[in-house]
Amino acid sequence: MRVLGIDPGLTRCGVGVVEGSLGRPLTLVDVNVLRTSAGIPVAERLVTIEKGLDAWLDEFRPDAVAVERIFARSDVSTIMGTAQASGIALVVAARRGLPVALHTPSEVKAAVSGSGRADKAQVTAMVTRILRLDAPPKPADAADALALAITHIWRGSAQARIDAALAAAGRKQ
Amino acid sequence: MRVLGIDPGLTRCGVGVVEGSLGRPLTLVDVNVLRTSAGIPVAERLVTIEKGLDAWLDEFRPDAVAVERIFARSDVSTIMGTAQASGIALVVAARRGLPVALHTPSEVKAAVSGSGRADKAQVTAMVTRILRLDAPPKPADAADALALAITHIWRGSAQARIDAALAAAGRKQ
Repeated sequence: MRVLGIDPGLTRCGVGVVEGSLGRPLTLVDVNVLRTSAGIPVAERLVTIEKGLDAWLDEFRPDAVAVERIFARSDVSTIMGTAQASGIALVVAARRGLPVALHTPSEVKAAVSGSGRADKAQVTAMVTRILRLDAPPKPADAADALALAITHIWRGSAQARIDAALAAAGRKQ
Repeated sequence: MRVLGIDPGLTRCGVGVVEGSLGRPLTLVDVNVLRTSAGIPVAERLVTIEKGLDAWLDEFRPDAVAVERIFARSDVSTIMGTAQASGIALVVAARRGLPVALHTPSEVKAAVSGSGRADKAQVTAMVTRILRLDAPPKPADAADALALAITHIWRGSAQARIDAALAAAGRKQ
């Protein structure tokens, strides 16, 4: 399966596409950061992000989209823009009928590094290793988007297995 | 001018259209609340809100859109959904090239009631009087959307007068 990970933000919105399945090597398809300038009105910045995300969906045709779940306890100065950008990410995916999942930063860290408290450098190092890259992904802060996509592939596959096992158990009863 | 006021929210998103200009009686065109159920995924709720707002823009063709500015200090339990809904409101308007303005709750209260600390009942009473309605607007909590539209017409017109006066003063120099 192919997953687009989105690390939402108004100034920098990380996007990363990963392909693969649980138990098989995962592959980096592409990664980047969508940027908008603080000098233009928020509404226009959000439209720019919407267009950018639509272009990624058009180009890479992912099977699912994974978006970072934002918490209100995050940095208050940027939380509103981040939340607005995450709303755009959710809508852009959902109106195409794509499955969208939200993963918390702790879930992502735990999935790629084994620890929910991993720091940014550890996450980047693990993403580099999991995707068998020669060097850390660039731009550096787009590693989170790749980590989201990896988490989604692993969690989704695991959940599908659990669902299948439960369904099979149900049939046996 | 005709203005669509949007009081963003995930569960209840107020929408109200007002027509008029500074110094002339304002008219209620329509008012309602877009509702989405807490039982469905956030991404789908946002798509429902997007479709609802698009339908209002299609039907009423406003000249401008006024959205309530959200602050991070608001109620933490609902702030993320409210922020995401406000992002959708901004994008829906901006991608049509419509002017979008954000007004704070204090600005709206001050504009319609003369006090930045007016309570909900006072705002509703003033909206009812300003629009010369026989009864308070229904649903009751859509009064905020109408108050936003009223604020926008008055502030926008006032600003345009100030700009024109400054431009005229500039020409005289």
